[in-house]
Amino acid sequence: MHRKASVIWEGNLREGTGTLSTESGALRDTKYSFRTRFERANGKEKNGKERKWTNLEELIAASLGGCFSMTLSDELERSGLHPERIETTAVATLEESKGRWTLTRIELEVCAKIPNATQNHFIDAALAAKTNCSIAQLLNTNILMIAHLEA
Amino acid sequence: MHRKASVIWEGNLREGTGTLSTESGALRDTKYSFRTRFERANGKEKNGKERKWTNLEELIAASLGGCFSMTLSDELERSGLHPERIETTAVATLEESKGRWTLTRIELEVCAKIPNATQNHFIDAALAAKTNCSIAQLLNTNILMIAHLEA
Repeated sequence: MHRKASVIWEGNLREGTGTLSTESGALRDTKYSFRTRFERANGKEKNGKERKWTNLEELIAASLGGCFSMTLSDELERSGLHPERIETTAVATLEESKGRWTLTRIELEVCAKIPNATQNHFIDAALAAKTNCSIAQLLNTNILMIAHLEA
Repeated sequence: MHRKASVIWEGNLREGTGTLSTESGALRDTKYSFRTRFERANGKEKNGKERKWTNLEELIAASLGGCFSMTLSDELERSGLHPERIETTAVATLEESKGRWTLTRIELEVCAKIPNATQNHFIDAALAAKTNCSIAQLLNTNILMIAHLEA
Protein backbone atom coordinates (compact mmCIF):
# COMPACT_ATOMS: atom_id res chain seq x y z
CA MET A 1 0.00 0.00 0.00
CA HIS A 2 1.31 3.44 -0.92
CA ARG A 3 0.77 6.82 0.73
CA LYS A 4 1.81 9.93 -1.11
CA ALA A 5 2.69 13.56 -0.48
CA SER A 6 3.81 16.30 -2.88
CA VAL A 7 6.05 19.26 -2.21
CA ILE A 8 6.99 22.37 -4.15
CA TRP A 9 9.87 24.50 -2.85
CA GLU A 10 10.77 27.82 -4.45
CA GLY A 11 13.81 29.91 -3.65
CA ASN A 12 16.69 29.43 -1.28
CA LEU A 13 16.70 27.96 2.21
CA ARG A 14 16.18 31.11 4.29
CA GLU A 15 13.94 33.23 2.11
CA GLY A 16 12.23 30.51 0.10
CA THR A 17 8.82 29.01 0.78
CA GLY A 18 7.25 25.67 0.07
CA THR A 19 3.87 23.99 -0.07
CA LEU A 20 2.87 20.53 1.14
CA SER A 21 -0.03 18.47 -0.19
CA THR A 22 -1.13 14.96 0.75
CA GLU A 23 -3.05 12.50 -1.35
CA SER A 24 -6.07 12.57 0.97
CA GLY A 25 -6.37 16.34 0.65
CA ALA A 26 -5.90 16.86 4.41
CA LEU A 27 -2.93 19.06 3.51
CA ARG A 28 -3.51 21.04 0.33
CA ASP A 29 -0.86 23.56 -0.71
CA THR A 30 -0.16 24.10 2.98
CA LYS A 31 2.72 26.54 3.31
CA TYR A 32 5.96 26.08 5.21
CA SER A 33 9.30 27.87 5.33
CA PHE A 34 12.58 28.03 7.19
CA ARG A 35 11.44 30.97 9.31
CA THR A 36 8.15 29.38 10.33
CA ARG A 37 9.93 26.08 10.97
CA PHE A 38 12.92 27.28 12.98
CA GLU A 39 12.32 30.88 13.97
CA ARG A 40 8.77 30.78 15.32
CA ALA A 41 7.72 33.32 12.71
CA ASN A 42 4.09 33.51 11.72
CA GLY A 43 3.59 33.11 8.02
CA LYS A 44 2.28 36.26 6.39
CA GLU A 45 0.57 36.42 3.06
CA LYS A 46 1.56 39.15 0.63
CA ASN A 47 -1.72 40.90 1.39
CA GLY A 48 -0.68 41.09 5.06
CA LYS A 49 -3.26 38.57 6.29
CA GLU A 50 -2.00 35.83 8.53
CA ARG A 51 -2.46 32.28 7.36
CA LYS A 52 -1.72 29.03 9.12
CA TRP A 53 1.67 27.72 8.06
CA THR A 54 2.69 24.28 9.16
CA ASN A 55 6.08 22.98 10.22
CA LEU A 56 7.48 19.54 9.59
CA GLU A 57 7.88 18.62 13.25
CA GLU A 58 4.23 19.14 14.19
CA LEU A 59 3.31 16.68 11.41
CA ILE A 60 5.64 14.09 12.99
CA ALA A 61 4.09 14.79 16.40
CA ALA A 62 0.57 14.37 14.97
CA SER A 63 1.51 11.09 13.31
CA LEU A 64 3.02 9.65 16.49
CA GLY A 65 0.18 10.90 18.72
CA GLY A 66 -2.39 9.42 16.34
CA CYS A 67 -0.67 6.05 16.11
CA PHE A 68 -0.12 5.81 19.87
CA SER A 69 -3.78 6.63 20.60
CA MET A 70 -5.25 4.02 18.27
CA THR A 71 -2.72 1.42 19.44
CA LEU A 72 -3.66 2.14 23.06
CA SER A 73 -7.34 1.48 22.25
CA ASP A 74 -6.24 -1.88 20.84
CA GLU A 75 -4.08 -2.76 23.86
CA LEU A 76 -7.00 -1.96 26.18
CA GLU A 77 -9.46 -4.06 24.15
CA ARG A 78 -7.04 -6.99 24.32
CA SER A 79 -7.31 -6.92 28.09
CA GLY A 80 -11.11 -6.70 27.98
CA LEU A 81 -11.43 -2.95 28.51
CA HIS A 82 -13.49 -0.61 26.35
CA PRO A 83 -12.08 2.92 26.22
CA GLU A 84 -14.60 5.69 25.68
CA ARG A 85 -12.14 8.42 24.89
CA ILE A 86 -8.38 8.77 24.65
CA GLU A 87 -6.88 12.25 24.47
CA THR A 88 -3.20 12.64 23.71
CA THR A 89 -0.94 15.61 23.21
CA ALA A 90 2.42 15.06 21.52
CA VAL A 91 5.09 17.72 21.95
CA ALA A 92 8.24 17.50 19.85
CA THR A 93 11.36 19.25 21.16
CA LEU A 94 13.81 20.69 18.65
CA GLU A 95 17.34 21.52 19.72
CA GLU A 96 20.01 23.35 17.77
CA SER A 97 23.67 22.53 17.90
CA LYS A 98 26.21 24.10 15.54
CA GLY A 99 23.50 25.26 13.16
CA ARG A 100 21.82 21.85 12.91
CA TRP A 101 18.36 21.25 14.34
CA THR A 102 17.52 17.85 15.76
CA LEU A 103 14.22 16.53 17.04
CA THR A 104 15.60 15.27 20.34
CA ARG A 105 12.42 13.95 21.96
CA ILE A 106 8.65 13.70 21.80
CA GLU A 107 6.59 13.78 24.97
CA LEU A 108 3.21 12.07 24.91
CA GLU A 109 0.69 13.05 27.56
CA VAL A 110 -2.40 10.85 27.51
CA CYS A 111 -5.63 11.20 29.45
CA ALA A 112 -8.16 8.37 29.02
CA LYS A 113 -11.68 7.58 30.11
CA ILE A 114 -12.04 3.82 30.44
CA PRO A 115 -14.93 2.27 32.37
CA ASN A 116 -13.80 -0.34 34.94
CA ALA A 117 -10.09 0.11 34.28
CA THR A 118 -7.63 -0.06 37.13
CA GLN A 119 -4.61 2.20 37.21
CA ASN A 120 -2.30 -0.80 36.76
CA HIS A 121 -4.12 -2.17 33.70
CA PHE A 122 -4.14 1.28 32.15
CA ILE A 123 -0.44 1.92 32.71
CA ASP A 124 0.47 -1.52 31.32
CA ALA A 125 -1.59 -0.86 28.19
CA ALA A 126 -0.12 2.63 27.74
CA LEU A 127 3.44 1.33 28.03
CA ALA A 128 2.68 -1.45 25.54
CA ALA A 129 1.16 1.07 23.09
CA LYS A 130 4.23 3.32 23.37
CA THR A 131 6.46 0.35 22.52
CA ASN A 132 4.31 -1.34 19.86
CA CYS A 133 2.98 1.65 17.93
CA SER A 134 4.42 1.47 14.42
CA ILE A 135 5.25 5.18 14.21
CA ALA A 136 7.17 5.00 17.52
CA GLN A 137 9.21 2.19 15.98
CA LEU A 138 9.83 4.35 12.91
CA LEU A 139 11.28 7.29 14.85
CA ASN A 140 14.93 7.59 15.97
CA THR A 141 14.21 9.80 18.96
CA ASN A 142 13.42 9.60 22.66
CA ILE A 143 9.73 9.10 23.38
CA LEU A 144 8.51 9.94 26.88
CA MET A 145 5.01 9.41 28.25
CA ILE A 146 2.81 10.68 31.06
CA ALA A 147 -0.51 8.83 31.46
CA HIS A 148 -3.62 9.84 33.45
CA LEU A 149 -6.70 7.72 34.00
CA GLU A 150 -9.85 9.81 34.32
CA ALA A 151 -12.10 8.99 37.24
CA MET B 1 11.62 24.88 20.74
CA HIS B 2 8.43 22.87 21.00
CA ARG B 3 5.98 21.73 18.35
CA LYS B 4 2.66 20.32 19.41
CA ALA B 5 -0.17 18.16 18.13
CA SER B 6 -3.37 16.98 19.83
CA VAL B 7 -5.32 13.81 19.26
CA ILE B 8 -8.70 12.53 20.36
CA TRP B 9 -9.53 8.86 19.77
CA GLU B 10 -12.97 7.44 20.50
CA GLY B 11 -13.94 3.78 20.41
CA ASN B 12 -11.99 0.65 19.67
CA LEU B 13 -9.26 0.07 17.11
CA ARG B 14 -11.32 -1.13 14.15
CA GLU B 15 -14.55 0.84 14.47
CA GLY B 16 -13.25 3.87 16.36
CA THR B 17 -12.29 7.20 14.83
CA GLY B 18 -9.91 9.93 15.83
CA THR B 19 -9.11 13.54 15.09
CA LEU B 20 -5.72 15.21 14.69
CA SER B 21 -4.97 18.88 15.27
CA THR B 22 -1.68 20.74 15.09
CA GLU B 23 -0.69 23.91 16.86
CA SER B 24 -0.40 25.88 13.62
CA GLY B 25 -3.96 24.98 12.63
CA ALA B 26 -2.80 23.27 9.42
CA LEU B 27 -4.56 20.16 10.74
CA ARG B 28 -7.72 20.99 12.65
CA ASP B 29 -9.89 18.10 13.86
CA THR B 30 -8.75 16.18 10.78
CA LYS B 31 -10.24 12.70 10.92
CA TYR B 32 -8.42 9.37 10.74
CA SER B 33 -9.34 5.76 11.45
CA PHE B 34 -8.09 2.20 11.12
CA ARG B 35 -10.09 1.62 7.93
CA THR B 36 -8.89 4.78 6.21
CA ARG B 37 -5.34 4.08 7.38
CA PHE B 38 -5.01 0.40 6.50
CA GLU B 39 -7.95 -0.57 4.31
CA ARG B 40 -8.01 2.21 1.73
CA ALA B 41 -11.53 3.12 2.80
CA ASN B 42 -12.81 6.59 2.11
CA GLY B 43 -14.03 8.30 5.23
CA LYS B 44 -17.76 8.95 5.16
CA GLU B 45 -19.58 11.42 7.31
CA LYS B 46 -22.81 10.36 8.99
CA ASN B 47 -24.69 12.48 6.48
CA GLY B 48 -23.18 10.39 3.67
CA LYS B 49 -20.94 13.15 2.35
CA GLU B 50 -17.34 12.25 1.72
CA ARG B 51 -14.73 14.20 3.62
CA LYS B 52 -10.97 14.09 3.39
CA TRP B 53 -9.58 11.81 6.07
CA THR B 54 -5.86 11.70 6.56
CA ASN B 55 -3.61 8.78 7.40
CA LEU B 56 -0.51 8.86 9.55
CA GLU B 57 1.86 7.70 6.83
CA GLU B 58 1.07 10.50 4.38
CA LEU B 59 1.98 12.97 7.16
CA ILE B 60 5.37 11.26 7.53
CA ALA B 61 5.83 11.38 3.73
CA ALA B 62 4.95 15.10 3.69
CA SER B 63 7.39 15.85 6.49
CA LEU B 64 10.26 14.00 4.79
CA GLY B 65 9.50 15.45 1.33
CA GLY B 66 9.35 18.95 2.82
CA CYS B 67 12.61 18.61 4.72
CA PHE B 68 14.44 17.05 1.78
CA SER B 69 13.31 19.84 -0.57
CA MET B 70 14.42 22.72 1.62
CA THR B 71 17.70 20.96 2.44
CA LEU B 72 18.33 20.47 -1.29
CA SER B 73 17.90 24.21 -1.88
CA ASP B 74 20.55 24.77 0.80
CA GLU B 75 22.97 22.22 -0.66
CA LEU B 76 22.64 23.85 -4.08
CA GLU B 77 23.22 27.36 -2.68
CA ARG B 78 26.35 26.12 -0.96
CA SER B 79 27.78 25.19 -4.35
CA GLY B 80 26.82 28.55 -5.85
CA LEU B 81 23.62 27.44 -7.59
CA HIS B 82 20.25 29.17 -7.25
CA PRO B 83 17.32 26.78 -7.64
CA GLU B 84 14.12 28.28 -9.05
CA ARG B 85 11.83 25.44 -8.20
CA ILE B 86 12.16 22.02 -6.58
CA GLU B 87 9.25 19.58 -6.88
CA THR B 88 9.32 16.40 -4.84
CA THR B 89 6.89 13.54 -4.40
CA ALA B 90 7.35 11.24 -1.41
CA VAL B 91 5.66 7.83 -1.53
CA ALA B 92 5.61 5.73 1.63
CA THR B 93 5.18 1.97 1.23
CA LEU B 94 3.36 0.07 3.96
CA GLU B 95 3.72 -3.69 4.20
CA GLU B 96 1.81 -6.08 6.40
CA SER B 97 3.30 -9.12 8.04
CA LYS B 98 1.43 -11.19 10.64
CA GLY B 99 -1.10 -8.43 11.23
CA ARG B 100 1.52 -5.74 11.80
CA TRP B 101 1.98 -2.89 9.36
CA THR B 102 5.43 -1.42 8.80
CA LEU B 103 6.51 1.57 6.76
CA THR B 104 9.22 -0.26 4.85
CA ARG B 105 10.43 2.53 2.56
CA ILE B 106 9.87 6.03 1.26
CA GLU B 107 10.68 6.90 -2.34
CA LEU B 108 11.54 10.49 -3.13
CA GLU B 109 11.25 11.63 -6.72
CA VAL B 110 12.60 15.11 -7.25
CA CYS B 111 12.46 17.30 -10.33
CA ALA B 112 14.33 20.62 -10.13
CA LYS B 113 14.80 23.71 -12.25
CA ILE B 114 18.24 25.17 -11.54
CA PRO B 115 19.83 27.69 -13.91
CA ASN B 116 23.42 26.76 -14.88
CA ALA B 117 23.46 23.49 -12.94
CA THR B 118 25.26 20.49 -14.36
CA GLN B 119 23.85 17.01 -13.90
CA ASN B 120 26.79 16.10 -11.66
CA HIS B 121 26.42 19.08 -9.34
CA PHE B 122 22.70 18.44 -9.07
CA ILE B 123 23.07 14.74 -8.23
CA ASP B 124 25.76 15.48 -5.63
CA ALA B 125 23.51 18.06 -3.96
CA ALA B 126 20.48 15.73 -4.04
CA LEU B 127 22.45 12.89 -2.45
CA ALA B 128 23.78 15.24 0.24
CA ALA B 129 20.24 16.50 0.96
CA LYS B 130 18.94 12.93 1.28
CA THR B 131 21.69 12.17 3.82
CA ASN B 132 21.70 15.45 5.75
CA CYS B 133 17.99 16.25 5.97
CA SER B 134 17.00 16.08 9.65
CA ILE B 135 13.76 14.19 9.02
CA ALA B 136 15.63 11.52 6.99
CA GLN B 137 17.92 11.08 10.00
CA LEU B 138 14.87 10.75 12.24
CA LEU B 139 13.30 7.90 10.26
CA ASN B 140 14.18 4.21 10.69
CA THR B 141 13.27 3.21 7.15
CA ASN B 142 14.80 2.86 3.69
CA ILE B 143 14.83 6.09 1.73
CA LEU B 144 15.26 5.85 -2.03
CA MET B 145 15.62 8.74 -4.46
CA ILE B 146 15.19 9.45 -8.16
CA ALA B 147 16.37 12.89 -9.29
CA HIS B 148 15.66 14.73 -12.55
CA LEU B 149 17.20 18.02 -13.63
CA GLU B 150 14.85 20.06 -15.83
CA ALA B 151 16.35 21.45 -19.00
